[in-house]
Amino acid sequence: MAKEKYVYMFEEGDKSMKNLLGNKGANLADMTKIGLPVPRGFIITTDVCRYYYANGRKYPEVLQEQVLDAVKRLEKSTGKKFGDPKNPLLVSVRSGSVVSMPGMMDTILNLGINDAVVEGLAKGTKNERFAYDSYRRFVTMFGDVVMGMERSKFEHIMDEIKHKNKIKLDTEMTVPMLKELVTKFKEIYKKETNEDFPQDPIEQLKRSQGAVFGSWETERAVIYRRLNHLSSELGTAVNIQEMVFGNMGEDSGTGVAFTRNPSTGENKFYGEFLMNAQGEDVVAGIRTPKKVEELGKVLPKVYKELVEIRNKLEQSYKDMQDFEFTIEHEKLYMLQTRNGKRTAHAAVKIAVDMVNEKLISQEEAVLRVDPASLGQLLHKQFDPKHKYEVLTEGLPASPGAAVGKVVFNAADAKMWAEKGEKVILARLETSPEDIEGMHSSVGILTARGGMTSHAAVVARGMGKCCVSGCDEIVMNEKGKMFTCKGKVVKEGDTISLNGSTGHVILGAVPVVEPTLSGDFAILMKWADGFRTLKVRTNADTPKDAQIARNFGAEGIGLVRTEHMFFDATRIKAVREMILAKDTAGRKKALAKIEPYQIEDFEGIFTAMNGLPVIIRMLDPPLHEFLPKEEQTKEIEELAKELGVTSKEVKETIVALHEFNPMLGFRGCRLAVVYPEIMETQVRAIFKAAMNVAKKGVKAIPEIEIPIVGTIKEYSPLAELTRRIAKEVGAQGKVHYTIGSMLEVPRAALTADVIAKEAEFFSFGTNDLTQMTCGFSRDDSAKFLIPYVEKGIYARDPFQSIDQEGVGLLMKMAVGLARGVKPGIDIGICGEHGGDPATVEFCHRIGMSNVSCSPYRVPIARLAAAHAAIKEKQAKGKK
Amino acid sequence: MAKEKYVYMFEEGDKSMKNLLGNKGANLADMTKIGLPVPRGFIITTDVCRYYYANGRKYPEVLQEQVLDAVKRLEKSTGKKFGDPKNPLLVSVRSGSVVSMPGMMDTILNLGINDAVVEGLAKGTKNERFAYDSYRRFVTMFGDVVMGMERSKFEHIMDEIKHKNKIKLDTEMTVPMLKELVTKFKEIYKKETNEDFPQDPIEQLKRSQGAVFGSWETERAVIYRRLNHLSSELGTAVNIQEMVFGNMGEDSGTGVAFTRNPSTGENKFYGEFLMNAQGEDVVAGIRTPKKVEELGKVLPKVYKELVEIRNKLEQSYKDMQDFEFTIEHEKLYMLQTRNGKRTAHAAVKIAVDMVNEKLISQEEAVLRVDPASLGQLLHKQFDPKHKYEVLTEGLPASPGAAVGKVVFNAADAKMWAEKGEKVILARLETSPEDIEGMHSSVGILTARGGMTSHAAVVARGMGKCCVSGCDEIVMNEKGKMFTCKGKVVKEGDTISLNGSTGHVILGAVPVVEPTLSGDFAILMKWADGFRTLKVRTNADTPKDAQIARNFGAEGIGLVRTEHMFFDATRIKAVREMILAKDTAGRKKALAKIEPYQIEDFEGIFTAMNGLPVIIRMLDPPLHEFLPKEEQTKEIEELAKELGVTSKEVKETIVALHEFNPMLGFRGCRLAVVYPEIMETQVRAIFKAAMNVAKKGVKAIPEIEIPIVGTIKEYSPLAELTRRIAKEVGAQGKVHYTIGSMLEVPRAALTADVIAKEAEFFSFGTNDLTQMTCGFSRDDSAKFLIPYVEKGIYARDPFQSIDQEGVGLLMKMAVGLARGVKPGIDIGICGEHGGDPATVEFCHRIGMSNVSCSPYRVPIARLAAAHAAIKEKQAKGKK
Repeated sequence: MAKEKYVYMFEEGDKSMKNLLGNKGANLADMTKIGLPVPRGFIITTDVCRYYYANGRKYPEVLQEQVLDAVKRLEKSTGKKFGDPKNPLLVSVRSGSVVSMPGMMDTILNLGINDAVVEGLAKGTKNERFAYDSYRRFVTMFGDVVMGMERSKFEHIMDEIKHKNKIKLDTEMTVPMLKELVTKFKEIYKKETNEDFPQDPIEQLKRSQGAVFGSWETERAVIYRRLNHLSSELGTAVNIQEMVFGNMGEDSGTGVAFTRNPSTGENKFYGEFLMNAQGEDVVAGIRTPKKVEELGKVLPKVYKELVEIRNKLEQSYKDMQDFEFTIEHEKLYMLQTRNGKRTAHAAVKIAVDMVNEKLISQEEAVLRVDPASLGQLLHKQFDPKHKYEVLTEGLPASPGAAVGKVVFNAADAKMWAEKGEKVILARLETSPEDIEGMHSSVGILTARGGMTSHAAVVARGMGKCCVSGCDEIVMNEKGKMFTCKGKVVKEGDTISLNGSTGHVILGAVPVVEPTLSGDFAILMKWADGFRTLKVRTNADTPKDAQIARNFGAEGIGLVRTEHMFFDATRIKAVREMILAKDTAGRKKALAKIEPYQIEDFEGIFTAMNGLPVIIRMLDPPLHEFLPKEEQTKEIEELAKELGVTSKEVKETIVALHEFNPMLGFRGCRLAVVYPEIMETQVRAIFKAAMNVAKKGVKAIPEIEIPIVGTIKEYSPLAELTRRIAKEVGAQGKVHYTIGSMLEVPRAALTADVIAKEAEFFSFGTNDLTQMTCGFSRDDSAKFLIPYVEKGIYARDPFQSIDQEGVGLLMKMAVGLARGVKPGIDIGICGEHGGDPATVEFCHRIGMSNVSCSPYRVPIARLAAAHAAIKEKQAKGKK
Repeated sequence: MAKEKYVYMFEEGDKSMKNLLGNKGANLADMTKIGLPVPRGFIITTDVCRYYYANGRKYPEVLQEQVLDAVKRLEKSTGKKFGDPKNPLLVSVRSGSVVSMPGMMDTILNLGINDAVVEGLAKGTKNERFAYDSYRRFVTMFGDVVMGMERSKFEHIMDEIKHKNKIKLDTEMTVPMLKELVTKFKEIYKKETNEDFPQDPIEQLKRSQGAVFGSWETERAVIYRRLNHLSSELGTAVNIQEMVFGNMGEDSGTGVAFTRNPSTGENKFYGEFLMNAQGEDVVAGIRTPKKVEELGKVLPKVYKELVEIRNKLEQSYKDMQDFEFTIEHEKLYMLQTRNGKRTAHAAVKIAVDMVNEKLISQEEAVLRVDPASLGQLLHKQFDPKHKYEVLTEGLPASPGAAVGKVVFNAADAKMWAEKGEKVILARLETSPEDIEGMHSSVGILTARGGMTSHAAVVARGMGKCCVSGCDEIVMNEKGKMFTCKGKVVKEGDTISLNGSTGHVILGAVPVVEPTLSGDFAILMKWADGFRTLKVRTNADTPKDAQIARNFGAEGIGLVRTEHMFFDATRIKAVREMILAKDTAGRKKALAKIEPYQIEDFEGIFTAMNGLPVIIRMLDPPLHEFLPKEEQTKEIEELAKELGVTSKEVKETIVALHEFNPMLGFRGCRLAVVYPEIMETQVRAIFKAAMNVAKKGVKAIPEIEIPIVGTIKEYSPLAELTRRIAKEVGAQGKVHYTIGSMLEVPRAALTADVIAKEAEFFSFGTNDLTQMTCGFSRDDSAKFLIPYVEKGIYARDPFQSIDQEGVGLLMKMAVGLARGVKPGIDIGICGEHGGDPATVEFCHRIGMSNVSCSPYRVPIARLAAAHAAIKEKQAKGKK
């Protein structure tokens, strides 16, 4: 077997070799290949990193030899030599994984300088100041990055010298001062490390290379990889590149540029530069950089070359590039290029423009936009130009931005809103009784509850900004105030919420409105052309249904009827029904609810005219509709209203109490024991469908039975539905289907049996996750947060489906169901339906549709397109 | 195709044809075949019943013809004729399914009598009284059973005549009175049915046959089948048999007998008879029957024949028989035989005796004893001779009987017990804090909670009688009293509990002690010889472990360590640990608990010397160890004890509150977040194992990690265990294994992944059922009771594993695990481990062992033997 090749000269690689050379290295090689002016250099491959960790932090035997050989080739091609005072080779050393990673060693510059070289450099460049400044920078970086010294040790010495000489800026330092600095830096280096500052460039290089590989496993890097689902097997490469200097005088300079505007996406060269400066000076912000166009006036030839390079880069990479350049004595060098980060807005524009420019295909354009980033386009945002101080940070439960006056209960929210105030509803946690108050608010803030708490779920459904689980806030709802870190926020105080980051800010932060461009519509149309998965929405009101339809929803995947029961106009009848002593009493109360339910469904059917609407039968346990045991006043009022004793009400509340309500008397269990409840709902559905038909509206109700665990629950309820259809004369007139939720693991495990009768399925992945993983979403934060930190779950399984566990069960259920009924519609209506990774998963396991909150519909559409395109591409490769 | 045969003469069948002829019919045919004196007759098969219901209550076309043919054959063989006054054929008509069933039509006697026949009968028998008495009985039965008339209508007429004639007993009625009765009976018949009483015997037969088939689908029969898991496909047969009369004078009689004593099992003829009587007279209890032996004096020849028949029956049926006979003019007739019902005690004795008598094999003997019935042998029982009045009925949560004085809290239970009182602890529901009080009590009574509530589970573990979920009891714990149906029971009042029936009785009911016979030991030894499934026990104390070992447990399948944490000596340290602010604080508190835990484990290891002991790491959520939010006094005391503020304690309680504690921060989640807790437990286990080794005791700890959902939870905790083993020097010295519970569906679904590392598995089927079916055992009674009534679940899935749902997942998990590690030990330690049906299921899906409470160990051993034998027999058949 031939010797393993661990080192590549730039001219030996190209951009297809990212896994081996890292992103930076591959791009340097590629730029070299396409003839761009890249300082020469070589790359130690990621294979070495993997070998290093697999072999107890040892290098492959042949590595040293290959590195020395590469140094020789570099010396030959540059005509410079390591440690040669007359013509010294100086290099930069940088890490380079496939993705850049915080915690990784970044850069060591000027490697190769030593006591002899610095003098030669001074002579050769006729710039003593430059030579010693370069040396002191190198010693600092080496001490800090390679030897782990505290940077402050160096800064302290520098401050002393400045103080002694009564100067303030680094640039005011004279050559003698710089020389003193270098001497003192080497002294402190020796004191801290017990060795002289290494003089041999090869030794310097060896140590720096070790620092790069060592930084792969620092805690920060490990955590970053965990959080971003990156394998530690990726490894990092090391890039060694000849130094060029932008600080050689006024004919030198350095800059950073984007081939297009990363903020707007506009196809216009965009960047900044500084003359007589090194890269770090641009970042440091001491001098204000100039716009890249102005380089045309300073060095017209160089600028022209830069513009040509910009075009070459886009032609080569077919994407917007973010690159660094340096000018040394009017000669332009490219130091790095990579795909540029951009706003969602820019991403959409660039993708569409590049198709028009025939740079990329529509498929590629669709893939270029991250579905999750669309949230930015669909919601209000804090003005990115404005800086603000964060009071506390909760969970980014529902995206967008909100500014308003704080109120502490739903009634106040409603009252203030009616007066025209913008309010933010702050609660310990929300419950279904708060729905109306949430509607009246511009944002919701809770001290408890996770990303899938009631507040979060409802807010996302409403498209309202929500920050949940702010555990630093001590909420005093009765006192109409909260305290946080010693600050007191009272009713009426203005606060701002950023639902995309979880930030809570005192006072008002300027907010910008979302704007949907024509490019967005074009891109979404392309996306729709590729996807096969249908996208529906979860909507409980005609308004939400309309919003979702505008966003491209192809039906409703979930109407939760329980929200309707909380409405002030009918909660009394609902409670009367619960307190009824017998079937007759329940039927009497239900008769009062029926007309309202008919209205509800008429509205939704009208909004979704011609599209299917899955309506879920009443799901929550009945105690949710009653006051709580300790709400003595509410109980008394209710008793009076219904003409019963408070004791009776209290007894019902106690009797309905549940230890684990999530696993309690709910869903179809209610319908089996009290069929009259479901009968009323089904009757209302059919009547509504027939009513709207008279106005030319086509209703397609899909009646969904929740919490089904066995076919023996499903069958009698399906039978009940058909019986009611006949009774009200809807049979044969209204096109309806009956289906089952798959949210109890037992139902998923026996999906083949249930599929014999059910006409459609919908995964309720919130409950399915709770039951399959055995944790309640309301209680799990205590361990799920540490779990995600420790990588036990890659992501919060309530946000993105746990593909290896819950997903396994879903896949099994799809297989079982399709085995019995190949064409059966299978969807998902849990919160996961709007998560791009979950949408892709649903596509892969062959589901028919996903359903999500209205504001996530475009995200799901795009994610579904990604899934379809990736699948096609993967097939193409086989 | 030949014509379907729907009617069989007795001489055409045998006992192998039970499915077709019903149990009664097949046995009549069989007795005919072996030459016993059976009145002749024929059987309409169960096929007709199935046909009848499959075809809209219509009969097969050929049926009528076949019935008429059978009647002709019967007429020929008896020499009698339907409707012939001179020599009339009278028959009985009885239903006969494979199992007898309440709600099914039982018997119509004397069919064939009409106005002409009755006169002929009177002449022929020279017994006018007999003839008219038979007629009036027939009209009554026909009117009641076939035509659905109220029996009271007939009784009313009879009362009138008796009143008019001033007599009291039926036997005092004269012939004219009986004639008047017949006339009036026919009149009321006509009035109620709008038709004359049918005179044609064939018509009478047709109608009666219809009544039998019609009764198959009565509500009572349907419910019975549902409750007893009988398929409606079984169908019933109809038996038509020549009448014989025991009421023909003093040379006639009737009786019921068992081939052996059904109460003791003694091999001695056992039965009763009455001379000059019909079957119903024996049952009516007006005259006192005589012991069957006395028949030897009355009719020695007949008795001798009966004894011979008894022996023939046992030789033929190889089981104890329960049979009916009639003597007509000194001629003996057999009317029915079936396997006799018997007590568990008798079942064991008969089974062992029959092996010794070479009637049956050991295998057969083992199968003869119902595992569930062993409960009778292992627990105290109410004296069966004593009758009592039931105050109320709860759930039979833990078998046995208890008599004691009622107390209302654990402290009182302890105090009273220390004074030598036998107490029954009555609580709304029990919690872990009540453990000590439960130990002090002879029985436990709760108003809330199901068969698997805390009270039920713990009581079964302790082998103590428990009645749970008595919802008619209004419990007033603070007032130290309860009320039930208007009766008040105060502290110190004596009550009796029957944990096998759920009965609660005011006052003391005499109780008999269980006695385990030598036969029991022999049978269990045979059982052990057949079974392949190991049987372990769930035991938390050395005492329980010892009891279980005496009952034949082969190890411990579950030590729940949390009960140990509630002990008064350590609960303080446990609470200190929970309230600690950091790891150091927790470690300090845990250090106090460790010595106690070492002691706990030493005791258990010593009791189980040489047998494996699965110890489950701490499982419940931490809030279970703290006072409740409203227990202000307890909170204050605790705060004082621990030197913190009440507010701090309260805040911790609030912070630990969970909405769904079953799905909360518990099991291995605690160990992952607070590894120091598990470290302490593991350390205690290893230290205890090394300590007892010094005394020659061999400890085999099997460390079990609960609530595992993913391998990523399991791996670090297994690693932790091995690390501690090394730290305390147990590695290589103590033989230990590490395994995982399978109770979270996700773990079962990924059992293959976890099996790569786990050394054993144990199904926690309580939690697995809760999560797979999605109902909490504490809350599910509200719908599970109606569910079982409606047949949605065949049995309470917390008592017997839901084989088609939870069982499916178990089977899948066993397959996955064995696919990776073929020999891996897989057990079950949920409450189901002692349920015979579940044990058989565990055998069938290839598990290694079951574990149950000590008193259920023999039940599980026997059930495991049944499973193995049945499997062997099924294979033999193939």
